[in-house]
Amino acid sequence: MYFPYRLSLLYWGLSRSIGKTTQRIWGSFSKNLVLSSQTRRPEFNSFIARTNTCGELRSSHLGQEVILCGWIQYRRQNIFLVLRDFHGLVQVVIPQDEMMPTGEIEIKVKTAELLNPCKKLPFEIKDFVKKTEALRLQYRYLDLRSFQMQYNLRLRSQMVMKMREYLCNLHGFVDIETPTLFKKTPGGAKEFVVASREPGKFYTLPQSPQQFKQLLMVGGLDRYFQVARCYRDEGSRPDRQPEFTQIDIEMSFVDQSGIQSLIEGLLQYSWPNDKDTVVVPFPSMTFAEALATYGTDKPDTRFGMKIVDISDVFRNTKIGFLQDALTKPQGTIKAICIPEGAKSLKRKDFEFIRKFAVDHFNQEVLPVFLKGSRNQNSPVAKFIMEEQRLELIRLMEIQEDDVILLTVGEHKKACSLLGKLRLECADLLEARGVMLRDPAVFSFLWVVDFPLFLPKEEDPRELESAHHPFTAPHPSDIHLLYTEPEKVRSQHYDLVLNGSEIGGGSIRIHNAELQHYILATLLKEDVKLLSHLLQALDCGAPPHGGIALGLDRLMCLVTGAASIRDVIAFPKSFRGHDLMSNAPDYIPPEDLRPYHIQVSWPTDSEAAKSSLNHPTHQQS
Amino acid sequence: MYFPYRLSLLYWGLSRSIGKTTQRIWGSFSKNLVLSSQTRRPEFNSFIARTNTCGELRSSHLGQEVILCGWIQYRRQNIFLVLRDFHGLVQVVIPQDEMMPTGEIEIKVKTAELLNPCKKLPFEIKDFVKKTEALRLQYRYLDLRSFQMQYNLRLRSQMVMKMREYLCNLHGFVDIETPTLFKKTPGGAKEFVVASREPGKFYTLPQSPQQFKQLLMVGGLDRYFQVARCYRDEGSRPDRQPEFTQIDIEMSFVDQSGIQSLIEGLLQYSWPNDKDTVVVPFPSMTFAEALATYGTDKPDTRFGMKIVDISDVFRNTKIGFLQDALTKPQGTIKAICIPEGAKSLKRKDFEFIRKFAVDHFNQEVLPVFLKGSRNQNSPVAKFIMEEQRLELIRLMEIQEDDVILLTVGEHKKACSLLGKLRLECADLLEARGVMLRDPAVFSFLWVVDFPLFLPKEEDPRELESAHHPFTAPHPSDIHLLYTEPEKVRSQHYDLVLNGSEIGGGSIRIHNAELQHYILATLLKEDVKLLSHLLQALDCGAPPHGGIALGLDRLMCLVTGAASIRDVIAFPKSFRGHDLMSNAPDYIPPEDLRPYHIQVSWPTDSEAAKSSLNHPTHQQS
Repeated sequence: MYFPYRLSLLYWGLSRSIGKTTQRIWGSFSKNLVLSSQTRRPEFNSFIARTNTCGELRSSHLGQEVILCGWIQYRRQNIFLVLRDFHGLVQVVIPQDEMMPTGEIEIKVKTAELLNPCKKLPFEIKDFVKKTEALRLQYRYLDLRSFQMQYNLRLRSQMVMKMREYLCNLHGFVDIETPTLFKKTPGGAKEFVVASREPGKFYTLPQSPQQFKQLLMVGGLDRYFQVARCYRDEGSRPDRQPEFTQIDIEMSFVDQSGIQSLIEGLLQYSWPNDKDTVVVPFPSMTFAEALATYGTDKPDTRFGMKIVDISDVFRNTKIGFLQDALTKPQGTIKAICIPEGAKSLKRKDFEFIRKFAVDHFNQEVLPVFLKGSRNQNSPVAKFIMEEQRLELIRLMEIQEDDVILLTVGEHKKACSLLGKLRLECADLLEARGVMLRDPAVFSFLWVVDFPLFLPKEEDPRELESAHHPFTAPHPSDIHLLYTEPEKVRSQHYDLVLNGSEIGGGSIRIHNAELQHYILATLLKEDVKLLSHLLQALDCGAPPHGGIALGLDRLMCLVTGAASIRDVIAFPKSFRGHDLMSNAPDYIPPEDLRPYHIQVSWPTDSEAAKSSLNHPTHQQS
Repeated sequence: MYFPYRLSLLYWGLSRSIGKTTQRIWGSFSKNLVLSSQTRRPEFNSFIARTNTCGELRSSHLGQEVILCGWIQYRRQNIFLVLRDFHGLVQVVIPQDEMMPTGEIEIKVKTAELLNPCKKLPFEIKDFVKKTEALRLQYRYLDLRSFQMQYNLRLRSQMVMKMREYLCNLHGFVDIETPTLFKKTPGGAKEFVVASREPGKFYTLPQSPQQFKQLLMVGGLDRYFQVARCYRDEGSRPDRQPEFTQIDIEMSFVDQSGIQSLIEGLLQYSWPNDKDTVVVPFPSMTFAEALATYGTDKPDTRFGMKIVDISDVFRNTKIGFLQDALTKPQGTIKAICIPEGAKSLKRKDFEFIRKFAVDHFNQEVLPVFLKGSRNQNSPVAKFIMEEQRLELIRLMEIQEDDVILLTVGEHKKACSLLGKLRLECADLLEARGVMLRDPAVFSFLWVVDFPLFLPKEEDPRELESAHHPFTAPHPSDIHLLYTEPEKVRSQHYDLVLNGSEIGGGSIRIHNAELQHYILATLLKEDVKLLSHLLQALDCGAPPHGGIALGLDRLMCLVTGAASIRDVIAFPKSFRGHDLMSNAPDYIPPEDLRPYHIQVSWPTDSEAAKSSLNHPTHQQS
């Protein structure tokens, strides 16, 4: 049972006037006191009767009279109470007669006031008590009492505060709130709609303040930031939230290296003291290099196992499928080396790896043992000539008991496969006790020189923006816009931490003509929806660029949380439900009437189809 | 014409590589330099090539080589440029041959780079250029360049930053983001609805984080704050916004005086340096006293003209209508004294006052001249006996040429009328040159001891919450809850500044049983909608209370802005329109299909009716 409790000595008057509904326990203090020295931390007891938090009392407080507020964690024989608050636990003794105190200190009660009784809780507030996430979300107000949630949310607040100090106080950024009731943007298929009182007219909840922050630059507010609430309706997606938060930044007269220095300084300044210092500048890698070496645009650079192109080793091979691979257009042979894989991984692990490659990429992958005891069992290794074997060992720095995973195919496809396998193997190795990714290490990386456009999935002859249509082309590639736009690189940059994208931004187009050409001619968008932005660029828009950091993801990595839901006070389930309040909920038709909308109830067959595509309600 | 410009000396390389699309003007510096001493302000030039802002250059910078970025404010004969940024203006000379410089300093160009050309603007960026608000909102990105908007938004950012320092760094508050996709609350008629992908289910945008902040207290996050975006759909209301911002605060184990000290300290700490210091503690007044003395729950205490009950003076009067008034139940005679009203106000002013009283309150008000030259013209004054005249002069401290406004009627109605007239008279006096309300004075006031319930407008036998159903009753009045609930005072408090309510809060109910009794028995609400909150109170909720400050209104008063739209970067018009982007906007039916909603287009007769109730589109 948990009761919020106040142990009071100094506030007789107060405790008497509230006392009508409370129990009181009397006693006196037993020891003499020395006041502890002032610390620099915030004053947690201002404005209230409390003198100390439960967790801070030490032998230096001996004899001091204190007022504590907290929840009863344990009660033993009505003599001992353990009182808990966000700061820790402390033992309280309700004096019966003279006793031998245990522990460094304890508190002898003079007055105790029961502030609120408590029913049997659905789960106890103890870290070792395991509970399902659904139960935790249903009783979020209890889950928040856990040490881990208290730590996560308090650290988040502190880190964001340090970021604000850095941006506002040190570098003159202006915190500006931008609207969340906006209008649909071109291609904004994932925007929630909000009905207005005008028939047929809707606001939308924007996916980011992108347009507004660019307009602020036109407006001469040349250093903007905002801890911005953003919205994206992605239906049911694990580890995504319909509303999320980004540290949103934009600057005028800046180039890519300026934004990068800013962000490096920001993270270094705001990084928690109990973690390793952030070393700046962060390394940088082109998109092409990231793909070739790690098979992804968000490499986890905490460990090696890089992808190596071994095509040249096999130019003159006699092995049939390798020969075949190299004769195909853009055919390559690539491999990664699993350190001590021959020792750590089991036969079933290799079976899993081969199956994974077939299932997800429709592609073959071969484990090859080139050094150590098992190479005689490797069917391919037998056919590799000694000269090639030595060249591979040299090229891939293969050690005793290492194993390589080899695949053939088109460059991008082969890299993507090996990139995924690299992460799967890291999981397998760590499950077998080989630690590759030190949780105390934070490995930042800039990925740059992305393509400006990608071929559209529905029709590869058409182009779409790789990021968004406001991204400026790379200065060296501008001439290609009019001849080979698919080859143009952009001034977009991503910030990657331990294999997760935690931010992205770009230098923007500030020339109205160029912006119009890209929107209308290359992307074939309806420019009318963006006429205000094009007009603004024509009114003396300065060169500008910016970035947005995904705060939820960043905090998840900093705290080592299992999910972004663990760094958000009241998250939605992966189906977008608030399991505590049961949002979203039905609304009576009369409440929709002022908004001139009505529900189109799906027919039975549609409903059946839709439920097939969705997990059941129980799993939400 | 306005061009963003960069004057560059140090960055030859940079200016060359960008130079392809720019003009360049060459020259050299003419004077020797002394570097100015470091200041403590933020570094506005970090991460970019700029060395100084336009406004900061003084003779101490003479001879220094600088890089400036800005917009061309004037261009004279292609020799002088005046360059503008958020910090000010500076004159730049494009050297032709030797010239005589004017002004304290000027800048001789070595390199100038045109960064973007500019069309003819719809209005010039000069404070004296008058433009309609509709035009300003349509071209908000230009309006933001004005001195006043730059000042307002930068001050807002700074003030909020100081508030955060006070709350987070000094007092251990935790900044926690709460969801904005929530569910309808009881009585939440003004909540925007957001369609979800589940047929018939909607999120709503909450009017405040009230429920979440109380749940955070239950969750042991005992000092919460948030600069919270809130939503309220009030249709067309002048000087209201569909989305607005509040400084939202909640604490555990606190009482009313604790919250008040916190807010006094917060405002004192964050108050701008260029304004008069905030003196604390703020004075406090009960709701009953505010009504009796100022006729309102948000008195402007910068000036006197208090309402005086003069019933006793006329207990034995022979004047018919006064006699009549006092014989009625709750009949009173009340007056305010207009200082020097007989001198400052004209006959038409008094006509306006009498008409105002009749039009808005269906009530008579009489100007009475008791002292000075005009008292012979006052019809009522003639009938007032000398003894009563002297008593009135003493009671109301009437000076030469003062005039009193007298009314009769029921206490609350008479007070409300005189409260309104007090403000109308202040406007009239100030229009005639008598300054009553010093714009440099900030007069804070706590209003306390509000009633907990009010009779429902539709059915006065039923009760509704005066503020919200979570407000705790006044400890002295708890027993009345079960006998005469309409007499219970609450632990609600309002913060008033210069006659505007800028904040309100309360100590909350933390006992589940009491909360259930008030919701179900007294307010007859459907408690099912709040079952999660009632359950949470039952799980050891600590005593708690909080407050919310309306940031937009506060900033409006601090900056002396004419409207809250002048302290918001991208406000909506009073009809809720974004005049720049044209939000809200029509959405094609296929984009509504995933949300299972369709538009109910009003019939022609409904549409005609609705347009009668609305101002025309031109005025939006």
